[in-house]
Amino acid sequence: MEKSVVLGIDIGGTNTIYGFVTRGGTIVFHDEIPTNGSKPISDLIERIGDKIKEFFSKNREYSLNGIGIGAPNGNHYTGMIQSPPNLSWGCIDIVSLFKEKMHCETLLTNDANAAALGEKSFGLAKHMDDFVVVTLGTGLGSGIFSSGKLLYGHDGFAGEMGHISIDFNGRLCNCGNRGCLEAYVSATGIKNTIQKLLEKDPQNTLLQTLCKDNIDGFLLDKSYDKGNETAIKIYHYTGEKLGQGLALLANLLSPEAFIFYGGFSNAGERIFASARKSMKHNLINSSEKDIKLIQSGLAKGQAGILGAASLIWTK
Amino acid sequence: MEKSVVLGIDIGGTNTIYGFVTRGGTIVFHDEIPTNGSKPISDLIERIGDKIKEFFSKNREYSLNGIGIGAPNGNHYTGMIQSPPNLSWGCIDIVSLFKEKMHCETLLTNDANAAALGEKSFGLAKHMDDFVVVTLGTGLGSGIFSSGKLLYGHDGFAGEMGHISIDFNGRLCNCGNRGCLEAYVSATGIKNTIQKLLEKDPQNTLLQTLCKDNIDGFLLDKSYDKGNETAIKIYHYTGEKLGQGLALLANLLSPEAFIFYGGFSNAGERIFASARKSMKHNLINSSEKDIKLIQSGLAKGQAGILGAASLIWTK
Repeated sequence: MEKSVVLGIDIGGTNTIYGFVTRGGTIVFHDEIPTNGSKPISDLIERIGDKIKEFFSKNREYSLNGIGIGAPNGNHYTGMIQSPPNLSWGCIDIVSLFKEKMHCETLLTNDANAAALGEKSFGLAKHMDDFVVVTLGTGLGSGIFSSGKLLYGHDGFAGEMGHISIDFNGRLCNCGNRGCLEAYVSATGIKNTIQKLLEKDPQNTLLQTLCKDNIDGFLLDKSYDKGNETAIKIYHYTGEKLGQGLALLANLLSPEAFIFYGGFSNAGERIFASARKSMKHNLINSSEKDIKLIQSGLAKGQAGILGAASLIWTK
Repeated sequence: MEKSVVLGIDIGGTNTIYGFVTRGGTIVFHDEIPTNGSKPISDLIERIGDKIKEFFSKNREYSLNGIGIGAPNGNHYTGMIQSPPNLSWGCIDIVSLFKEKMHCETLLTNDANAAALGEKSFGLAKHMDDFVVVTLGTGLGSGIFSSGKLLYGHDGFAGEMGHISIDFNGRLCNCGNRGCLEAYVSATGIKNTIQKLLEKDPQNTLLQTLCKDNIDGFLLDKSYDKGNETAIKIYHYTGEKLGQGLALLANLLSPEAFIFYGGFSNAGERIFASARKSMKHNLINSSEKDIKLIQSGLAKGQAGILGAASLIWTK
């Protein structure tokens, strides 16, 4: 008997992950290819097309039921990716391009929404109707579920939690505004914090090491666990800021839980403990609320492809 | 032929407005009675019961299809009013009390959600799926629609826009937290602003007059229209703060419009112009967004009873 799978694609700034997903959430096969964002989008589509052919020629018992895509600035309503950061594509109608090439149903959403759909269909949020997935990587993204539905807003651009301001006179964000949550709580934000600390304490060896190139989250975690005061200060500060952002959202939407996914979410309770305290401090009716802060249980890179695939499976 | 009506009740801190509403949104009869919040809730229910009997004995062609209630801290999920401000009732199961007394279906929501339901069923939001109603009175309330549904959150307490912080080191709010939007944008907030201005400029006659008892919105509007610099300063400052709050919400939920209702919304463009500018300044992708700021078209006191009634009509 032919078995049906959906191709879930998670387009990232550097790499694109794809996987063939059954209705039950089993990833039959997955792999990673470079996005090559400086080349035209047709190059990526061509290479994914080759991977699809390769998979189905080797696995003749499967058939393709559709394609779900998660991408930065992907718009579910229009099927367009609109000027994604770090990719030179401008505005592209990626859904039409895939349909033309693969002749199957194709749906798009943004990368953080895809992670939220992954949690709802196959992760910790299976039995939740009101929750928020916060992706902590280079930036901070979010996908918001309310009453069991992913919120898209009027134009498909809801969920920009990384760009709510926690201080209108605060840090300048890459988006041009001030005090965005992402400017404090993300790899970029933590790097910013480390640089500011280094200005005050230039001899600090941990800060010197951390400041090189990309932030080493593993080193930061290890230093925190050993009781290094600087590491503790960095995570407590980051957690305090995160908690302020969570409180803003929680006062508006009263979710059951925030689920964290992505590189920096591995810090877990090292950040969550102070975030929880700061969130409660800034909630209305906080004594009546018990909003959970939890780390995703989905494997690295899988929330995106599972969620992208569930666009097709749950439609 | 018997005609069906729903009783819509809007319980306020001072007065309770009630009206008998047809499915089409016609208010057949409406009136106002004192809430008497220092007496037990049974007193208010008794008096409303008498009003219902009176109406139906005089209007024998009508029958009662149900009761919808909007009240401060009213919880749609539990049917409870939970320690409403300015009312001495503590936690009361108002839905059960009404059902017991009137033997008909009864549903509850909070006052700002009722106003939002009123706009959706019978007001400017009839054809909108994603919008926010902001009630500007003594406090600031909000009811949020997304994808055509009112957002309640996990526990029924979503929509606390008055208590999102626009400055975590800012003004102390009545709720105990700092920088709540309500502490700047509401009658209470504007009074606060006027007092701060008066400290710097104690001879200012407009500020002296405004500072007495309740803020006179009509005088403030008139002074603004005549070009009074102090009035302009007050509204511009209030609008700037409002715009920051709107941007926070808009980045998360991307609504089509904010609709303003209640006493201070009569200031209209006097506040909206600077609010719009400040909102756009703090939005991500602001050039692609055209979020409307508009004043409700529903008459004073009617949004609440229409919305409360629509709880029954649209269930």
